[in-house]
Amino acid sequence: MKILVVNGPNLNLLGTREPEIYGTKTLDDVMESLQKTGLDLGAEVRWFQSNHEGALIDRIQAARDDGTEGLILNPGGLTHTSVSLRDCISGVSLPTIEVHLSNIHARETFRHHSFIAPVAAGQIVGLGALGYELALRALIQGVR
Amino acid sequence: MKILVVNGPNLNLLGTREPEIYGTKTLDDVMESLQKTGLDLGAEVRWFQSNHEGALIDRIQAARDDGTEGLILNPGGLTHTSVSLRDCISGVSLPTIEVHLSNIHARETFRHHSFIAPVAAGQIVGLGALGYELALRALIQGVR
Amino acid sequence: MKILVVNGPNLNLLGTREPEIYGTKTLDDVMESLQKTGLDLGAEVRWFQSNHEGALIDRIQAARDDGTEGLILNPGGLTHTSVSLRDCISGVSLPTIEVHLSNIHARETFRHHSFIAPVAAGQIVGLGALGYELALRALIQGVR
Amino acid sequence: MKILVVNGPNLNLLGTREPEIYGTKTLDDVMESLQKTGLDLGAEVRWFQSNHEGALIDRIQAARDDGTEGLILNPGGLTHTSVSLRDCISGVSLPTIEVHLSNIHARETFRHHSFIAPVAAGQIVGLGALGYELALRALIQGVR
Amino acid sequence: MKILVVNGPNLNLLGTREPEIYGTKTLDDVMESLQKTGLDLGAEVRWFQSNHEGALIDRIQAARDDGTEGLILNPGGLTHTSVSLRDCISGVSLPTIEVHLSNIHARETFRHHSFIAPVAAGQIVGLGALGYELALRALIQGVR
Amino acid sequence: MKILVVNGPNLNLLGTREPEIYGTKTLDDVMESLQKTGLDLGAEVRWFQSNHEGALIDRIQAARDDGTEGLILNPGGLTHTSVSLRDCISGVSLPTIEVHLSNIHARETFRHHSFIAPVAAGQIVGLGALGYELALRALIQGVR
Amino acid sequence: MKILVVNGPNLNLLGTREPEIYGTKTLDDVMESLQKTGLDLGAEVRWFQSNHEGALIDRIQAARDDGTEGLILNPGGLTHTSVSLRDCISGVSLPTIEVHLSNIHARETFRHHSFIAPVAAGQIVGLGALGYELALRALIQGVR
Amino acid sequence: MKILVVNGPNLNLLGTREPEIYGTKTLDDVMESLQKTGLDLGAEVRWFQSNHEGALIDRIQAARDDGTEGLILNPGGLTHTSVSLRDCISGVSLPTIEVHLSNIHARETFRHHSFIAPVAAGQIVGLGALGYELALRALIQGVR
Amino acid sequence: MKILVVNGPNLNLLGTREPEIYGTKTLDDVMESLQKTGLDLGAEVRWFQSNHEGALIDRIQAARDDGTEGLILNPGGLTHTSVSLRDCISGVSLPTIEVHLSNIHARETFRHHSFIAPVAAGQIVGLGALGYELALRALIQGVR
Amino acid sequence: MKILVVNGPNLNLLGTREPEIYGTKTLDDVMESLQKTGLDLGAEVRWFQSNHEGALIDRIQAARDDGTEGLILNPGGLTHTSVSLRDCISGVSLPTIEVHLSNIHARETFRHHSFIAPVAAGQIVGLGALGYELALRALIQGVR
Amino acid sequence: MKILVVNGPNLNLLGTREPEIYGTKTLDDVMESLQKTGLDLGAEVRWFQSNHEGALIDRIQAARDDGTEGLILNPGGLTHTSVSLRDCISGVSLPTIEVHLSNIHARETFRHHSFIAPVAAGQIVGLGALGYELALRALIQGVR
Amino acid sequence: MKILVVNGPNLNLLGTREPEIYGTKTLDDVMESLQKTGLDLGAEVRWFQSNHEGALIDRIQAARDDGTEGLILNPGGLTHTSVSLRDCISGVSLPTIEVHLSNIHARETFRHHSFIAPVAAGQIVGLGALGYELALRALIQGVR
Repeated sequence: MKILVVNGPNLNLLGTREPEIYGTKTLDDVMESLQKTGLDLGAEVRWFQSNHEGALIDRIQAARDDGTEGLILNPGGLTHTSVSLRDCISGVSLPTIEVHLSNIHARETFRHHSFIAPVAAGQIVGLGALGYELALRALIQGVR
Repeated sequence: MKILVVNGPNLNLLGTREPEIYGTKTLDDVMESLQKTGLDLGAEVRWFQSNHEGALIDRIQAARDDGTEGLILNPGGLTHTSVSLRDCISGVSLPTIEVHLSNIHARETFRHHSFIAPVAAGQIVGLGALGYELALRALIQGVR
Repeated sequence: MKILVVNGPNLNLLGTREPEIYGTKTLDDVMESLQKTGLDLGAEVRWFQSNHEGALIDRIQAARDDGTEGLILNPGGLTHTSVSLRDCISGVSLPTIEVHLSNIHARETFRHHSFIAPVAAGQIVGLGALGYELALRALIQGVR
Repeated sequence: MKILVVNGPNLNLLGTREPEIYGTKTLDDVMESLQKTGLDLGAEVRWFQSNHEGALIDRIQAARDDGTEGLILNPGGLTHTSVSLRDCISGVSLPTIEVHLSNIHARETFRHHSFIAPVAAGQIVGLGALGYELALRALIQGVR
Repeated sequence: MKILVVNGPNLNLLGTREPEIYGTKTLDDVMESLQKTGLDLGAEVRWFQSNHEGALIDRIQAARDDGTEGLILNPGGLTHTSVSLRDCISGVSLPTIEVHLSNIHARETFRHHSFIAPVAAGQIVGLGALGYELALRALIQGVR
Repeated sequence: MKILVVNGPNLNLLGTREPEIYGTKTLDDVMESLQKTGLDLGAEVRWFQSNHEGALIDRIQAARDDGTEGLILNPGGLTHTSVSLRDCISGVSLPTIEVHLSNIHARETFRHHSFIAPVAAGQIVGLGALGYELALRALIQGVR
Repeated sequence: MKILVVNGPNLNLLGTREPEIYGTKTLDDVMESLQKTGLDLGAEVRWFQSNHEGALIDRIQAARDDGTEGLILNPGGLTHTSVSLRDCISGVSLPTIEVHLSNIHARETFRHHSFIAPVAAGQIVGLGALGYELALRALIQGVR
Repeated sequence: MKILVVNGPNLNLLGTREPEIYGTKTLDDVMESLQKTGLDLGAEVRWFQSNHEGALIDRIQAARDDGTEGLILNPGGLTHTSVSLRDCISGVSLPTIEVHLSNIHARETFRHHSFIAPVAAGQIVGLGALGYELALRALIQGVR
Repeated sequence: MKILVVNGPNLNLLGTREPEIYGTKTLDDVMESLQKTGLDLGAEVRWFQSNHEGALIDRIQAARDDGTEGLILNPGGLTHTSVSLRDCISGVSLPTIEVHLSNIHARETFRHHSFIAPVAAGQIVGLGALGYELALRALIQGVR
Repeated sequence: MKILVVNGPNLNLLGTREPEIYGTKTLDDVMESLQKTGLDLGAEVRWFQSNHEGALIDRIQAARDDGTEGLILNPGGLTHTSVSLRDCISGVSLPTIEVHLSNIHARETFRHHSFIAPVAAGQIVGLGALGYELALRALIQGVR
Repeated sequence: MKILVVNGPNLNLLGTREPEIYGTKTLDDVMESLQKTGLDLGAEVRWFQSNHEGALIDRIQAARDDGTEGLILNPGGLTHTSVSLRDCISGVSLPTIEVHLSNIHARETFRHHSFIAPVAAGQIVGLGALGYELALRALIQGVR
Repeated sequence: MKILVVNGPNLNLLGTREPEIYGTKTLDDVMESLQKTGLDLGAEVRWFQSNHEGALIDRIQAARDDGTEGLILNPGGLTHTSVSLRDCISGVSLPTIEVHLSNIHARETFRHHSFIAPVAAGQIVGLGALGYELALRALIQGVR
């Protein structure tokens, strides 16, 4: 099973930005570790990060033709502002789980609403890097 | 590790109520299966269900003195209306993960807001009964 | 035909509380009179009152297995606050009519919205104890 | 006892418009049947329909001088927009019951609010054509 | 100088409807008295009342061609709901003063907003029938 | 193909009212020209204008029985206030295109919302009298 | 009859400030002219202006003991912000008419709401300095 | 004089829950101390705590028949969500003072509104356990 | 212990203004009586009243240098509108209790919000003149 | 005449994404067909699509210098979120018509508002690919 | 060039009030230093502080006649509440720059809106006492 | 000292777009002039402009590693819509001042709110190109 993990703006700062909220592991660390877990569970994990909304959309659209069978999406700040990303998720029709490292419901009010969640299968928030792994397990077990 | 799972109003209808949203397994089925997974992962899972807000609060308060080390809470309809349940979670200070079977963000607007989420460690929504298992894994791995 | 009438918080005060709004007959008087009308119309009327949201939910859930064919619900103050009661009505799938003795639309703004109404067949407000009888007639005539 | 039934815009389409919501009986059918029920209950039922707000107001004002003792009003779409119709009901001071065939609380948000309800004695919604009959019974039994 | 006074829905009930708010003089009384005051001040006062929004608009449109030099408008309940009446006032470009007998700001919230006021020269509220006379004086003195 | 064009309140002022917004052609000019275009495109165009909401509804209802196959509706100020007109459009089930001469989104906030648009096939705004012609072309090409 | 006219902040700029909105007469001019009109109508007009909310309240409170029988109040910018001025009007119980030179309903949204209007007898807006004279006439004719 | 003190959900955690907000005395300590003060002031103080909304309502209703002459109510989290508790207070018609240990106006926005306050005689917030004593003094001095 | 009591706009009308809400004792009566109670409890009570926001701020600022150890503030109408008074309370850092004679939560909506409460220690409302005494006791007992 | 057609995010999915809403023709099909229509009407149509907001802005800015005389813009999801795109349209000052394939007013609430519409000449929604052709005709006929 | 600096309520507490937000320099220090900078830049700086809205308005009005050529205004808490101060700025028509020491956008929501900003030339926030100097430079360089 | 100036979408149009709002100098002119001022004040000024949100974020992230000691940010239209840009500013932790050429508080409502301001040190609006220079001075003087 092929899983694509897409990370939005500023997630490349992981491990250096506001570590009291996001922890000290870098995105490379987290993704590598996720790939290993994927191997254990029989899934190939590929990943992508960009600060460009358009690049994220391009990448997700491409997933329709590269064998991707499930999508894990951490949209970063675009979660709360991007109708285009939402339309992209609707458009590609892949099983999608939204992940947030921090508990967005315990932060500023504008972070409580997600444009993505209503078109995803589900959402995991506040569990740190573990959220990616749980999402991976869910996709492997056939959540859609 | 001792984990308490608390289920709110109408979750006893699971498997019979709106199966197109909630699936056909009963709560007993789901909890039993969770207990087995718990055993595999080295955790003892106890569970409770009530349609009474007060009984849920009583049970969670009792968890302070019965060795419980983590809480999985599916508050049902109380999610959106109960400040008392929120205060209870704040009061007992146990690592808590909120779980919803359905994707509350894809349903009526009044289901998008949770009084519980800001005082929980995290939230898992839309992944069906699997959500309980993922929450269990998170607690065992030390999320708080 | 078996009809269950469920009365929510403070309806046991009927006849003694704010009689200029609610009249001077007690709940016992009103329910007894309704049972007689039921007999005349060929329906068996059973009734229940509680100040406990949980007890109301328990009772309505039990109606799935006791032959109840229709539900008349006066949720009292829970009308405006209880998502759990709403979910219960959705869950049991009985023909349900919501009744309010007073005209909730002529009172405080927070009484204008009902969480129950959208999942009931219909709603009768402002017609006093007669509202129960009209609801009874509607259920007997097959409203659902 | 003389009862006037006033039907607002588009109710003349009854039986042909959106039958899955409103049923297949025409307004003539429903009103005729109501007149028969009225006779049985000792009341003379007259009725009126117009798509013109002004004509509805003219007719209701005229009811002050033609012996009308009770008013059943289905304001159609004007329910949600007409302060003038509300003022008319306040002005003529007849016992008035508002009726809606469909469950307005289960439809679009803008249909949840009624300008009429606060100045009527009560409101019956979602019970189809039966709502008129129940309103008739209520007026005959002296609701005001 | 020719002045047209236009009265909206339910103002024909004046003197009989809610006299504690609107007084006991009929609209005929008030308009006649206004015509006399007009004569004293050198103005010819004509007046119109209708419960039909369309008829009010037709009449005001006609005022463009019948020598009318000023408009006094009491829109009744249409004040708060009619964009069409507002557009009509904008369209005919006559000096217009809006009059309300009662103090709309001391009544229900929905009466506080007027669609007409922003396109009128001014507004007089709460001064009873005297409001018409004051508006007449203002138009005669050249307010626009 | 028979097309009905219905124009709401104050559109009879076209060419004389606020020409900087609406241009200097009269409604007669515009409709005549539209009829010619209709002939060229093989469609018979009939039209109607009224300042009365009720008359507009009557006319549109009549279109169900007079061979009308498509509706072009410029509801004027009723766009923003008339649930009854909306219900009429829903009720007659004709392919309908809403047209506004001016760009309603560049004007006052209350003009941004249309009660009609959600039940029409589409909406054309801000293109002046040309909007009618484009709507005509769309109906002829089978938009619904 | 003794009438007090109270003018709020910045009205001392009258005649010099934004003359396209407020005209070119000074407050002294306007008040003097009003005093003459008062004499003609048999009323003694006294007036007061201050930029200090507290001074306005002090002056109005003093009116309870100096023979004042009616109050004309132009609260300026305090109209929209001063609960204290409102409470003062409620407290002194003098017949009060609120006057605004400009049409506050045709200006910024925050000027549409008046804290004073609900506790005054009435309100005159948009008629320039003439508004004071009309208010004077109303008080002399016994409006309260 | 008999005074009943009713404490809502989670107040049984007092002294152990969030002591930086609520202090370290237990509810037993606080109530005992209040009973002593009551004795000094000539009043008998009884008290009750429950996490169940229904039990609180049952207890307050019972106070109508057990000689209670005044009510001190700390509704905990139900303050902000319970219309049923409000209706109960209205229904029993006992002099009632609402008490909150913490300053609810300095906490989350949803804690600023109380459903109870409008039907209580008064409210004391932010003064810790002393609030109960002050409420007791007020009831003894005849506040209602 | 030195306590300063500061009373805002219109409180000098106490005993004469709306006695059904505020009682018949004058502010002098109430303050004198409070001073006596202060003496009994070992506190020196000084007081101040002004209708001028600026004078109230000046007085409270002065309290930093005149030995004042606690502040009782009834801000009157400024409660709901004065950020400056709030900043003043924050700035002087004296233990402060806000007092309202009437139950502001049972009055108009705009009286429900206090700009002062979040920066005060606590708030006492609806207990009439007794509120001052209770606040005094609280300050003497060391509330801050 | 040179016309530029700019298509926003996800429009490259046309024909494959949610065909029940958007139809089965690809964007290439639609644009090619539009170019042919353009040739017939004497206009050269160029087009551009990108998922990148910045690329869309770059392209539209470039249109100031490449002879473009009119702009057709389908901003996709950016319609509802992009102030930058709006500022770009304002900045280049080309006649612009906004086109949406689906009826955005019949979809989710957040799709009802367009940041673009107030700075465009007009808007065509809900007419499918035909909308582009109608916009083309409008630009050719000189709409601005 | 003559510049007037006007400081609103509580700015006289500068240096003593909440130093973690506002720093430890007194207002005298800051103003003196500003006067020196003014001399260097060829401008005479005068300043004024009051806790009285009315006194601030009086002073700014006086600036029309004392040679003032530019205004720096720190309105303190009045920023968010004073329409009168706004009208004063509009009325005197001097180039005006609004200054706030703290970053009002990083504080409570009610501090985010300024009634003054829309009628000032510009606004400088969050730069401490340096903000005054920057505003001075801007006025000297001819900003208006 | 190294300062980076980052300009968002459409600022490359400066000098050509809406000159009545933004002036006639190009961005190159303004930045060059700023660099000269920087040299005079002992700071090296580098600058960047892009219409791509992602490119702006990439550039600001890079500033963490290229010696930048302060950031001046004019986010253009992204000010009001970009949570991602906000997160980027939080993430890089450089002293940041937000600059707007025009007075955003005197323009459309949606321009009044900035997602950036709460995480910047301060904000300068409405002072044209001079705003950059003032921000530069503030950074050099150590604002953070």
